[in-house]
Amino acid sequence: MGEVKLIASTESLFCVRIEWALKLKGVEYKYIEEDLRSKSKTVILEYIDETWKENPLLPQDPYQRALARCWAKFVDEKCVFGAWGACIAKGEEKEKAVESALESLAFLEKQIQGKKFFGGEQIGLLDLVAGWIPHWLNVMEEVGGMKLLDAEQFPSLHEWAQNFIHTSLVKECLPPREKLVNYFNASVSYMHSLAANK
Amino acid sequence: MGEVKLIASTESLFCVRIEWALKLKGVEYKYIEEDLRSKSKTVILEYIDETWKENPLLPQDPYQRALARCWAKFVDEKCVFGAWGACIAKGEEKEKAVESALESLAFLEKQIQGKKFFGGEQIGLLDLVAGWIPHWLNVMEEVGGMKLLDAEQFPSLHEWAQNFIHTSLVKECLPPREKLVNYFNASVSYMHSLAANK
Repeated sequence: MGEVKLIASTESLFCVRIEWALKLKGVEYKYIEEDLRSKSKTVILEYIDETWKENPLLPQDPYQRALARCWAKFVDEKCVFGAWGACIAKGEEKEKAVESALESLAFLEKQIQGKKFFGGEQIGLLDLVAGWIPHWLNVMEEVGGMKLLDAEQFPSLHEWAQNFIHTSLVKECLPPREKLVNYFNASVSYMHSLAANK
Repeated sequence: MGEVKLIASTESLFCVRIEWALKLKGVEYKYIEEDLRSKSKTVILEYIDETWKENPLLPQDPYQRALARCWAKFVDEKCVFGAWGACIAKGEEKEKAVESALESLAFLEKQIQGKKFFGGEQIGLLDLVAGWIPHWLNVMEEVGGMKLLDAEQFPSLHEWAQNFIHTSLVKECLPPREKLVNYFNASVSYMHSLAANK
């Protein structure tokens, strides 16, 4: 085994037990604090980028790095949850939720215009973070009975999605579509049952 | 670096991007599937136990192993969320939530009777999983304005909590109490604001 790194949050009662287990085993480890409240879901990607230097995920320039991180946060906080919100919304809330999801995608459309990847000529951090769009969003659309990534409304984002998903390393890791459909159908039913019991 | 292991769920759009990053970097890794829906929060502990043999966390006997896992699930699903539910409940729901949390703790009280640790003479998996009780539960009690781990009502569990928290390796990893109080206060306020906006 190489060096063990524990990415954890000091406040989490689910993390501390892992630390105890490593100590019990006498395993040396490096503790890396992640503030769960900041919802920084890119921390593992940044860690990977710092550990292995080939194919850099973030730009060299500090300003460009900050921008890429900012967009990654936008995708996680607005686009992912926007699409999910539209997927589970029902009745009169549906239209509003779909509109809100479309607004977020419009920002991404502007961002990708004239570029092959968000990272430029190569796949970068933001491509990975937005990488759920070609596969997962399509499933959310089916399960939620709505269209979000329309090729006419978002031509550049649609083209990027096709480029990205046909990259061989991306294709290799995609879960079967049918499995995702079942998973999202079950999740949506669960969310609706929670709302019904309120 | 030693062998990289990725513990992930195929359905998760937050996990797949990490897999893509590792592939981009050309990093060999072992993929370990974790079904997020099964909420098996002990998977990392079991992985640690299998990787490093000293101080076994689980018993040798298959039946005893299954029992320990079953109790770990009970602690995560009933005790942790029971205490948290009691912490955030307000008004007439408070009493019901506290009662339900106490019922779960009563099962643990029976389980620890006559033993030093849940694992017997040594700390085992279930001690780690229940290890939030002496530190975190106390904070939840303060923040939620309630008493759950009463020394008279739960004498054995209370004694275990004292033994456990005074073990040196356990003490070393505890976050400062004040930090936890702030964290839980903020979380409770957040939950209440969500409920108010329903």
